[in-house]
Amino acid sequence: MKRHLISAADLTRDDAVLILDTAEEMARVADRPIKKLPTLRGRTVVNLFFEDSTRTRISFEAAAKRLSADVINFSAKGSSVSKGESLKDTALTLEAMGADAVVIRHHDSGAPHRLATSGWIGGSVVNAGDGTHEHPTQALLDAFTMRRRLTGGEGHDLSGRHITIVGDVLHSRVARSNVHLLSTLGARVTLVAPPTLVPVGIGSWPCEVSYALDPVLTKSDAVMMLRVQRERMKDAFFPTEREYARRYGLDGERMARMPEHALVMHPGPMNRGMEITAEVADSPRCTAVEQVTNGVSIRMAVLYLLLGGSEPAVTTVPAARTEESNPS
Amino acid sequence: MKRHLISAADLTRDDAVLILDTAEEMARVADRPIKKLPTLRGRTVVNLFFEDSTRTRISFEAAAKRLSADVINFSAKGSSVSKGESLKDTALTLEAMGADAVVIRHHDSGAPHRLATSGWIGGSVVNAGDGTHEHPTQALLDAFTMRRRLTGGEGHDLSGRHITIVGDVLHSRVARSNVHLLSTLGARVTLVAPPTLVPVGIGSWPCEVSYALDPVLTKSDAVMMLRVQRERMKDAFFPTEREYARRYGLDGERMARMPEHALVMHPGPMNRGMEITAEVADSPRCTAVEQVTNGVSIRMAVLYLLLGGSEPAVTTVPAARTEESNPS
Amino acid sequence: MKRHLISAADLTRDDAVLILDTAEEMARVADRPIKKLPTLRGRTVVNLFFEDSTRTRISFEAAAKRLSADVINFSAKGSSVSKGESLKDTALTLEAMGADAVVIRHHDSGAPHRLATSGWIGGSVVNAGDGTHEHPTQALLDAFTMRRRLTGGEGHDLSGRHITIVGDVLHSRVARSNVHLLSTLGARVTLVAPPTLVPVGIGSWPCEVSYALDPVLTKSDAVMMLRVQRERMKDAFFPTEREYARRYGLDGERMARMPEHALVMHPGPMNRGMEITAEVADSPRCTAVEQVTNGVSIRMAVLYLLLGGSEPAVTTVPAARTEESNPS
Repeated sequence: MKRHLISAADLTRDDAVLILDTAEEMARVADRPIKKLPTLRGRTVVNLFFEDSTRTRISFEAAAKRLSADVINFSAKGSSVSKGESLKDTALTLEAMGADAVVIRHHDSGAPHRLATSGWIGGSVVNAGDGTHEHPTQALLDAFTMRRRLTGGEGHDLSGRHITIVGDVLHSRVARSNVHLLSTLGARVTLVAPPTLVPVGIGSWPCEVSYALDPVLTKSDAVMMLRVQRERMKDAFFPTEREYARRYGLDGERMARMPEHALVMHPGPMNRGMEITAEVADSPRCTAVEQVTNGVSIRMAVLYLLLGGSEPAVTTVPAARTEESNPS
Repeated sequence: MKRHLISAADLTRDDAVLILDTAEEMARVADRPIKKLPTLRGRTVVNLFFEDSTRTRISFEAAAKRLSADVINFSAKGSSVSKGESLKDTALTLEAMGADAVVIRHHDSGAPHRLATSGWIGGSVVNAGDGTHEHPTQALLDAFTMRRRLTGGEGHDLSGRHITIVGDVLHSRVARSNVHLLSTLGARVTLVAPPTLVPVGIGSWPCEVSYALDPVLTKSDAVMMLRVQRERMKDAFFPTEREYARRYGLDGERMARMPEHALVMHPGPMNRGMEITAEVADSPRCTAVEQVTNGVSIRMAVLYLLLGGSEPAVTTVPAARTEESNPS
Repeated sequence: MKRHLISAADLTRDDAVLILDTAEEMARVADRPIKKLPTLRGRTVVNLFFEDSTRTRISFEAAAKRLSADVINFSAKGSSVSKGESLKDTALTLEAMGADAVVIRHHDSGAPHRLATSGWIGGSVVNAGDGTHEHPTQALLDAFTMRRRLTGGEGHDLSGRHITIVGDVLHSRVARSNVHLLSTLGARVTLVAPPTLVPVGIGSWPCEVSYALDPVLTKSDAVMMLRVQRERMKDAFFPTEREYARRYGLDGERMARMPEHALVMHPGPMNRGMEITAEVADSPRCTAVEQVTNGVSIRMAVLYLLLGGSEPAVTTVPAARTEESNPS
């Protein structure tokens, strides 16, 4: 493992499988009488959020606290940052205060990379979503969810699985991170989007592209619906939201055409009636809620692996491992 | 005890006395060298606030931290909730992240009830104030304060005490919760309000109503002044604030006509010079500050009883109990 | 030590040296495998911020958490405080909730003093910046930084050192606190400011005043640049920011005229190109980042000394002391 997690594209297959396997161990902590590990006691995790994202912030906060780290929330709105303090000065400040990890959410693609490569920060940088670029922990939790449901679990990758990602790929850091990670894990990815919402350089991505949803449904092991951001719909030259839903939304009829074992995924929050109908959202095949749970396990694993922990792993996590038979 | 605390009206006399007795034990924690119990270590309490209420939020936060729980503050302003995420999706997210309790404050009467009965949440729901409906922990801390001052304390209820509640009953969740709980605990409650600020269905409430304050003062064991919300005063057809204060405010002269042992209560923050004069607010008979202290003990008791704790109570709370003679 | 820290002017030389020496011990905690002391377990520190100041808030938060205190952040914006609740009622509420220390930042000069002397608060009050009055922990961290760099460290004061403070002295609580503390510690202080930005009563301050920067540079052991608040520049009758930078800004050329051992200090965040050039800000002589690190140690020392701690100091801090030879 490197010291930072900036991009799903940086992860090797072994890195990714190690994170997923560690997350399986972290998931077992929730079954303990006391749902906490002492691993990161005395470590400080700063949530540096330049954009509001309560869901992502509280997922990292819950993960860090379950590892006994101290968490400091730094919303850059209304702070000296918004009064013109540079990212550099903010970074130097957090470093000087002894932050062991900085979890950064930023509206600019590339801000986490700048933070990690600048030398400003001695601790670890974790990208919690930057502009339209990447959201690597989201891709990891998606992969974790698929691996649990579609394979034998620990030790496995996603070789040979067909994953379809549907929606506004152009503006989606979730899509970008997923394409890279899923491909690294051996899956075959198809992006489905209207032509106007496909990025220009898509040719170099390790995936196929389709403008129509129906033909790919029947061969998908998982269909991941991206959240529609209504304010961007006009860029897509759709006359109405209804028209979008008709062509790219997932309803019960379409779901029925998917293989019986296939999953419906969504990073949340869902626009019921837009990219997904309530019927599909609430069906047992939809893993949206499971993804949220898995997000905490993945973020625990990432923080644990990046920060190393102040206690030997042997007395904490692997202890849990021997209690259960390992399915892999 | 049920799994949730939504309404003071749901509590039986035994439930209520158990909470008050447990709160007495919690109050003793403050006298320990280390003012904390390990009881809820590894549990996560989420403060889900759709309305600003710093006082209530920090009271729950302090209570949860004294029980060693992890606390996550989720202000719904500026979050995806305000961007149209439904209460359902928020609830499912918090449940999926492993929230053991969700403390909810909401502008809509009924939101906590919906949360608790929906099946969305596996943990406990605590109503921290919903619209004009209920604020049960406020009623519990008020009852705790009265029981301490007016009776022998632990084990007792408020049988035969006369409690008067004064002000804008129509819009007050505090009044509503108090009427139900006080009646359950055996007290006789009189509401005093201008006719325009009395709810329509008042006939079914277990209390008497008076439009005049002076006649009931002399027979009250406690007089609870509600906070005036100035923006609602015009609904009451009062020409001026001064006129309201003259007819329904509590000043030194009126306080002097109360029985010597009788309390003046206020949920805070007080409008000095409006519903209460500074003289009364600062007199030793006014329990406003004591109510705040008791609020932390009550919220500790509620969280402790709802969540059960990861440690046997026997090594923590009841230990304290045997150290002191029980007055009941 | 008194129970509160309101003003650097209140500190005797012995108080100040004790805080600086304790901060040296606190700084060593960062080198431990687990960077935390159990000293303030069960104590509650409230950050009561009437003004946004993320840097100061998270420095106090990190300090309190490293001492194992529980921290509650109370931003007075949008709370009942902004709805007209008095400082008194807020104080009584925090006291009633069991706050052991209230760290207050307020736009009104004198608010922390009022809080500390009112009798409303039984715990300790720490001034985290009030109007244009004082910011004592900033002055302490500045003195700590100078003592480390310019003297033998523990046990020492700053006798005979020449310190120059440059900029908008009129509006600067940092300047005010520094002048008092530095003078108490034996340093000779010169303030450099345009005539319009010098306070009226400056004659009674224990320092000299100069309207020109260049003459004092060559005899300074440290030059502290104050942050320019652009919105106040027009009060100073400067035609342009460039003109201010030319006369009072620190650039490489000026820095070269300072003695070789002399420091450049800045409380942050820096306006690069305004009061300080990027070249100077990023030079090894600039201690801005070190000051941030030292801020956490100083705030740990202040909270530790004011709150006493629930554990005997002997098992925690002084243990570290015996590990190293004490230079004093």
